[in-house]
Amino acid sequence: MTTSKVQFDHKTEKLVSKEPTAYKGDQERYERDWVPLIDSYIKARDDAIPKEYLVPEEFLPEGDLDTADFNATEVPAKILDPKSLAITELTAVELAKKIKEKELSAVQVLTAFIKRATIAHQLTNCAMDIFFEDGLKRAQELDSYYETTGQLVGPLHGIPLSLKEHYNYKGRVTHAGYVSLLGNVSPEFSLTNQILYDLGAVFYIRTSEPQCLMHLDSINNITGRARNAYKISMSPGGSSSGEGALIGMKGSPLGVGSDIGGSIRSPSAFNGIWGLKPSNKIISLDGVIAAPEDTYNEIIGGSLGPMANSPEDLELFMSAYASKKPWTKDVACLPLEWRELETPKPSELTIGICYDDGVVKPHPPVLRALKEVEQKLRAAGVNIVTWEPHRVYEAVEIAYTAYTADGNYAAVNRLAVSGEPLAPLTDYFLRMGKGDRGLTAVEQQFYTNSREVLRQEYLELFNKRGVDFVLAPTYVGVAPKPSTVKYWGYTALWNLLDYTCVTFPSGVFASKELDTPEEIQPRNEYEAYEYGLYDADKADGLPVGLTLAGRRYTEEDALKAGIVVRDALKA
Amino acid sequence: MTTSKVQFDHKTEKLVSKEPTAYKGDQERYERDWVPLIDSYIKARDDAIPKEYLVPEEFLPEGDLDTADFNATEVPAKILDPKSLAITELTAVELAKKIKEKELSAVQVLTAFIKRATIAHQLTNCAMDIFFEDGLKRAQELDSYYETTGQLVGPLHGIPLSLKEHYNYKGRVTHAGYVSLLGNVSPEFSLTNQILYDLGAVFYIRTSEPQCLMHLDSINNITGRARNAYKISMSPGGSSSGEGALIGMKGSPLGVGSDIGGSIRSPSAFNGIWGLKPSNKIISLDGVIAAPEDTYNEIIGGSLGPMANSPEDLELFMSAYASKKPWTKDVACLPLEWRELETPKPSELTIGICYDDGVVKPHPPVLRALKEVEQKLRAAGVNIVTWEPHRVYEAVEIAYTAYTADGNYAAVNRLAVSGEPLAPLTDYFLRMGKGDRGLTAVEQQFYTNSREVLRQEYLELFNKRGVDFVLAPTYVGVAPKPSTVKYWGYTALWNLLDYTCVTFPSGVFASKELDTPEEIQPRNEYEAYEYGLYDADKADGLPVGLTLAGRRYTEEDALKAGIVVRDALKA
Repeated sequence: MTTSKVQFDHKTEKLVSKEPTAYKGDQERYERDWVPLIDSYIKARDDAIPKEYLVPEEFLPEGDLDTADFNATEVPAKILDPKSLAITELTAVELAKKIKEKELSAVQVLTAFIKRATIAHQLTNCAMDIFFEDGLKRAQELDSYYETTGQLVGPLHGIPLSLKEHYNYKGRVTHAGYVSLLGNVSPEFSLTNQILYDLGAVFYIRTSEPQCLMHLDSINNITGRARNAYKISMSPGGSSSGEGALIGMKGSPLGVGSDIGGSIRSPSAFNGIWGLKPSNKIISLDGVIAAPEDTYNEIIGGSLGPMANSPEDLELFMSAYASKKPWTKDVACLPLEWRELETPKPSELTIGICYDDGVVKPHPPVLRALKEVEQKLRAAGVNIVTWEPHRVYEAVEIAYTAYTADGNYAAVNRLAVSGEPLAPLTDYFLRMGKGDRGLTAVEQQFYTNSREVLRQEYLELFNKRGVDFVLAPTYVGVAPKPSTVKYWGYTALWNLLDYTCVTFPSGVFASKELDTPEEIQPRNEYEAYEYGLYDADKADGLPVGLTLAGRRYTEEDALKAGIVVRDALKA
Repeated sequence: MTTSKVQFDHKTEKLVSKEPTAYKGDQERYERDWVPLIDSYIKARDDAIPKEYLVPEEFLPEGDLDTADFNATEVPAKILDPKSLAITELTAVELAKKIKEKELSAVQVLTAFIKRATIAHQLTNCAMDIFFEDGLKRAQELDSYYETTGQLVGPLHGIPLSLKEHYNYKGRVTHAGYVSLLGNVSPEFSLTNQILYDLGAVFYIRTSEPQCLMHLDSINNITGRARNAYKISMSPGGSSSGEGALIGMKGSPLGVGSDIGGSIRSPSAFNGIWGLKPSNKIISLDGVIAAPEDTYNEIIGGSLGPMANSPEDLELFMSAYASKKPWTKDVACLPLEWRELETPKPSELTIGICYDDGVVKPHPPVLRALKEVEQKLRAAGVNIVTWEPHRVYEAVEIAYTAYTADGNYAAVNRLAVSGEPLAPLTDYFLRMGKGDRGLTAVEQQFYTNSREVLRQEYLELFNKRGVDFVLAPTYVGVAPKPSTVKYWGYTALWNLLDYTCVTFPSGVFASKELDTPEEIQPRNEYEAYEYGLYDADKADGLPVGLTLAGRRYTEEDALKAGIVVRDALKA
């Protein structure tokens, strides 16, 4: 029985524990029992790569791919046949239209994307699981069905759709980046995979994620690390790392990521694509594998969401998905029908621009991109206000504590089965918040209350300031070097609030000439570290992805706002 | 760091701890510092009672009201003037129509309900807070507004609306049954009170609740216990005890209760009225006072909801409320617009009848009521199946553990300030689940997961069995003697599942002739105790209220089903 008050001051609590992580792994057991399984998993994947589509030697960078300053997005245009190149440059909406109008067959479309996905994987290591033959068989069936019946299976009929690996896939291994799950073959699709299948999507590739799914980066002990599409020595972001790199390479027109701290937005931003992080409970998590097996953390929730090369493709995904009423099958889903909206006039939108969250100042390329976008939005007639940050440090402290409130029970149970070694950013994740000791239930309920207070404050701030969306950095910089990202504040804030976020390419690329480093007086140790990561030479040429964040359950509005922004940037 | 598995077997865990409650109170401090505050609180309430409306001596039962076998619902017809009687027999929908059509003014309506509420309170002690004068002033303002503008303020224009006490009320004390909160005067209405006010409701009375709000009964240290409208020696149910008794007496046409374990449904059933327990996050809890101050328990959530004398009145409340879009003000509310539905044909409904939850067998009057209702529903053409109970013991174990997962941190903090003594059922509540020690966060997350698994199983059962609603007991019996109810399974199950519930009068009343006690072999200690409470003499004449329970977020459908049932029972 507790009678004293719970004591945490969110303003002064450390974000990350200094204590070393208790989990040490068991290298010997791991190497003896598990590395052979990894080897056969990798071999099966590699055997499935069609060698005839591999990039010829002369188009590859010299030396180690992992360290090359090489823009992989330029390769497909050099080596693909013109028809495959043209098909893979189309958006999902355009593909759906051409399939419907019988200008293209599902097999033609998938064949083109298989070629480009092969290139993407070769250069970025984005794939975990490849099953192009199954995809072609499915595409053939869809073509026959359409030919025979004159009917499309659904609004995604024939669209190649890539899947982050950790959703259960009928008859295939789903390991979620945990070595211990390499034997986990599920007999059924996850509900969301099943819904997408029923809508007519064609599956052919599942993509890479980091150990524990909890890095804004990509390394794991099974497939190693994925690489950034625009500079293969740099991070592709994470945890939907493979989706980011693959769609950035246009090796897939549309994919599904997941996001509990930035995992759709980070790879979208780093690879120059569009990503939607919906609010929780819109896209079903039923059959999605992560650390928790017998526990359920409600303090902060994960969201599945689409990633693509246009906001219209994200809309296509969301509206098609909602038409299947997932709430009738998964009790966790909310009964929210998709609202068909008109695209607003720019003057009907008010956007608050966030240049600094008060914790870590963004790097020069990001600030320049924000300014350029602001100017273009103003020119288009959008109402612009400056967004003053509100209690972001506290929000991050609550989020980091939420992630590990179980004292890493779930993650460590998954890790300990194989004894696999920790990646540096996994060690960092396990030390977030109070990961070293976990919380009591009353402490969890205290943190939950603090979250709820913050959510209410933000709603009232949005109302009071008359803001529809906040335009903010997705991360403090462009894609950094691998295994360096530690500050999740620019994304995790919105997870804690459960806000809808659309990440989009700003059209701005980092430039070593324009974006000269600045001397700053760090306000805290996190800023000292994270601002210090800026390297103008390494950043040069990388895309800046920004994020629109809006109230809960405003996916329809957020995507329409994305269209307004995209059109303003084009103008 | 935890690496072992969480160990709880929901099938074998005790529902309630045998250990005595650690909280002992501080009788001396309580009597010295707090009893004087209670006395002045009671005096203020009693001073507000219009003495001219009190029941004349000759219509009162002989002896102590607390022990009299006396049906208070028969009194108003004997002593009210015909016009006041006629007005107070109207439903809220009828009142709204007559006000709109200027057949009645808001002042006329409120005056009639003040007379009847005075009788109700005198006989059942249902009021905590009385402010009839403020109500009359407000009614006068509404009449003037309508007279001047020709416009109604909203769909509840002029409807007297009673409020359970624990919602913040502008300028008045809100104590939630805690002595320590007797000085808590809030400057603002709770959001829900404000919305109802803005819809045109007239507030005039706030009603009684038990200590800690956590009995299915009514006693507290401030106003004592409330009494059942049909037999004043018996329990009015709880925790919305006063609402049940007041609306059962037709001293209010429409009121607001709250329910986390049965607290709308129990008093609705025991006092023969209608009550809706919506799913969580439909009616705002912002500004509703309960034990938690700095903590938030997400394992099981409370719902506010309307209580009245007809399903149409519940619809009026819900549709009016939704029209104010509470989700734009309270971030916890879901953006669910009210769906206007047609009343289905009986043959379009499938109802599963639950005669036994597998834990505690219902008393004879309840079984008889279920059978009679089943027959009438069949006769009307409703599709009937038998509902086999599913893991109810486990559900109750999870629910009871959820209530006290914080080790009673919140409740004990509230109690300890005043040192007030525990009522027996508060002691029982504090011993529910693991209240004596509380959980760790990982244990909370384990229980949360178990809850989620159960929710999914129930959704799949409803789908598989093709059932729209389950018709079930609201409690094992009719209103029992005060301070006896311990088994919450027939209501708490649906809170754990977050299902929508409509409680309604079955039209059946317990009869000592028809409902003879049975000898049973108790399946467990809870059944031994609770079945043993049946007393045919005391139960005689009390109404049986049953409950329709349906999937989450189906308030519209549930109320239409209630109309179908009501019409079938009339036929």
